[in-house]
Amino acid sequence: MVIVQKYGGTSVGNAARIRRVCRRIAETVAAGHRVVAVVSAMGDTTDRLIELARRVSEAPPPRELDMLVANGETITAPLVAMCLQDRGVPAISLTGAQAGVRTSGHHSRARIKEIRPIRILNALGRGQVPVVAGFQGATEDFEITTLGRGGSDTTAVALAAALEADLCEIYTDVDGIMTADPRVVPEARLLSHISYEEILELAAVGARVMHPRAVEIGELYGVPIHVRSSFHRRPGTMVVSEVPMEDRKRVRGVAHDLSVAKVTVLGVPDRPGVAAAIFEPLSEAGISVDVIVQNVSSEGRTDLTFTVAEADLGRSLPLVEAAAAEIGAAGTSQAAGLAKVSLVGTGMLGTPGIAARMFRTLAEAGINIEMISTSEIRITCIVDRRRAEEAVRALHAAFELEQVPAGTPV
Amino acid sequence: MVIVQKYGGTSVGNAARIRRVCRRIAETVAAGHRVVAVVSAMGDTTDRLIELARRVSEAPPPRELDMLVANGETITAPLVAMCLQDRGVPAISLTGAQAGVRTSGHHSRARIKEIRPIRILNALGRGQVPVVAGFQGATEDFEITTLGRGGSDTTAVALAAALEADLCEIYTDVDGIMTADPRVVPEARLLSHISYEEILELAAVGARVMHPRAVEIGELYGVPIHVRSSFHRRPGTMVVSEVPMEDRKRVRGVAHDLSVAKVTVLGVPDRPGVAAAIFEPLSEAGISVDVIVQNVSSEGRTDLTFTVAEADLGRSLPLVEAAAAEIGAAGTSQAAGLAKVSLVGTGMLGTPGIAARMFRTLAEAGINIEMISTSEIRITCIVDRRRAEEAVRALHAAFELEQVPAGTPV
Repeated sequence: MVIVQKYGGTSVGNAARIRRVCRRIAETVAAGHRVVAVVSAMGDTTDRLIELARRVSEAPPPRELDMLVANGETITAPLVAMCLQDRGVPAISLTGAQAGVRTSGHHSRARIKEIRPIRILNALGRGQVPVVAGFQGATEDFEITTLGRGGSDTTAVALAAALEADLCEIYTDVDGIMTADPRVVPEARLLSHISYEEILELAAVGARVMHPRAVEIGELYGVPIHVRSSFHRRPGTMVVSEVPMEDRKRVRGVAHDLSVAKVTVLGVPDRPGVAAAIFEPLSEAGISVDVIVQNVSSEGRTDLTFTVAEADLGRSLPLVEAAAAEIGAAGTSQAAGLAKVSLVGTGMLGTPGIAARMFRTLAEAGINIEMISTSEIRITCIVDRRRAEEAVRALHAAFELEQVPAGTPV
Repeated sequence: MVIVQKYGGTSVGNAARIRRVCRRIAETVAAGHRVVAVVSAMGDTTDRLIELARRVSEAPPPRELDMLVANGETITAPLVAMCLQDRGVPAISLTGAQAGVRTSGHHSRARIKEIRPIRILNALGRGQVPVVAGFQGATEDFEITTLGRGGSDTTAVALAAALEADLCEIYTDVDGIMTADPRVVPEARLLSHISYEEILELAAVGARVMHPRAVEIGELYGVPIHVRSSFHRRPGTMVVSEVPMEDRKRVRGVAHDLSVAKVTVLGVPDRPGVAAAIFEPLSEAGISVDVIVQNVSSEGRTDLTFTVAEADLGRSLPLVEAAAAEIGAAGTSQAAGLAKVSLVGTGMLGTPGIAARMFRTLAEAGINIEMISTSEIRITCIVDRRRAEEAVRALHAAFELEQVPAGTPV
């Protein structure tokens, strides 16, 4: 099989961990597979480079910041390649540019346009393990770019798609996808399978899993993805198109995000274009808006409330206030200290009673719901942050997520 | 003027020093010059990367080591570029490959084959300061290479030659070229001018100045080089083809190297090819042989003695012993704990009495001379290491090097 193995920053955090990663790659090669490794920057290297940038520049230009942080991954890749060679496994490190990762020119958030894996295929043909610096690429003009958050996952899945790999393994510091954050719910259970859609929804509500971009590429090209721990040999979670029948139409997990703020635009005139006027400036500033609720209009005016990450609240307010003034709204208000609690599961909304049971569970725990948002496979409630972990535990228990569904492969 | 400014590792050792470097570049730009900056890795970054490599690999392959250590300079370059932009000076960082530095494929000791400074010229044309990562280049196949010791100096002087720059400034942590190491001779004086030949000889005898490769390129293309401190504004030493008349035919400086060992091959048969048989294996192993002395032959046999850096002694011995056996020599002996003390000055040997005065000075100090070697502009004596600094001080005083020659611009 051709297997793309992605090792995150924690997995390659120091020399001892790099040696451990190489032992695993060597074992996979010894088992007769052809391996392409994709590696992240070691531990906090990226943060330290960004901190250096902040010390010499008030607002580092994205082009130079990309040149700088790309070094994180191009340090790891040759270390892994030389460590493999030291173990007798032929290997060659490649920068994103050398690996043929061609991107758009949007620095710090470039998109992969195509992959020309000529050097990777040549290396595989020579029996070498190509060790690719994740998170980065280059434009046609050899300008170095980075892919933004989740970049190394994106590199790995895109490479697996381009190489038509049999499997893409995402090695991480957690066991796989859990029914809830085990730090909050001690009974949380590892999911053996999850669908691309479900993991996308989990990521959207803040669960620390794969980045949505990587998942989307995986779904688009049908790349089988295995999210697993780099610290032990037990299997993790397979991300696949179809979860086993027993797992469908059920609540699969409870996710939460403790850093939510809400903004309300009061007395919005009820006419076309006002929502665009509010949200376009936020989008241009790179601020993600999450749950949006608009009440029924009364007397031609309505209140519009939405959530943003708490860290983005400060940057959001002046933009929203300007937009509110422009469209003739009555004013704005905001609140921080909120959290998102979400149930996720394929086809869940088609199953009667799940939403009702969620609301009743929270009500019985005396937890007030501030906002509600739903998708095909997710129900999200915004609650007070101080009650969020209690809400997660109550929901995990109410939906019996700690129990393995009958007939499910464990 | 077009000025290439090279800043070494100490000059860019931390964020504060990078800001200081950028202030100087900004001042040069404000004075109406076009500046190309060449930067080294910050402080001990290269050493730390090599230490990481040692922790994951017993013998890191040169190709991967180059991929690894090249990050040192590609971290500094964007930091300098963003700091300049922060000061309002347009700038763009370039890797060696982006700057058009095309090299041979000899990893860790690549030679510059040519420079295609298209991006540098474009940047200058746009009014930007190109900030080039020194010490590195790329082959035609986009393999990343490094230039070995003195690599950033070499990048700077080669760029100055390719751009036909008016001046190449080498910023360093010393004031310039001194008559002797001021830590040994407190009276040591800064030289305002020095010839390419003299600085080459100083480098050859271990003085911590510019790398010979950079000087050779400077001489070949007639690049005016200014070696100066990055810590103050005072001028340093100009490296030029012709030193002022008053400085010629004089001793210019005393250099020393405290890490010398000697190897003697005893009873070497006096026939063609024996020297080649001894020195070729050393050369292939990358070991530099310095002073070589062969005594007059007696009864068809002779003793051959040479020096190597003390750090190379261990690697040298098995090679020399094998060669000695092959040519039928009587045996080998070795001694460490030696030092080189050299007088340097253009046309010095044409001036009667300098060698004699050197030997008399050492004799009066009771310092035994173990070996002697001379060139057109240098006399080197090998002495006991414990007496070397005393020898340097005695020679500096005997030749009155602390005194500025009459008529010399200071």
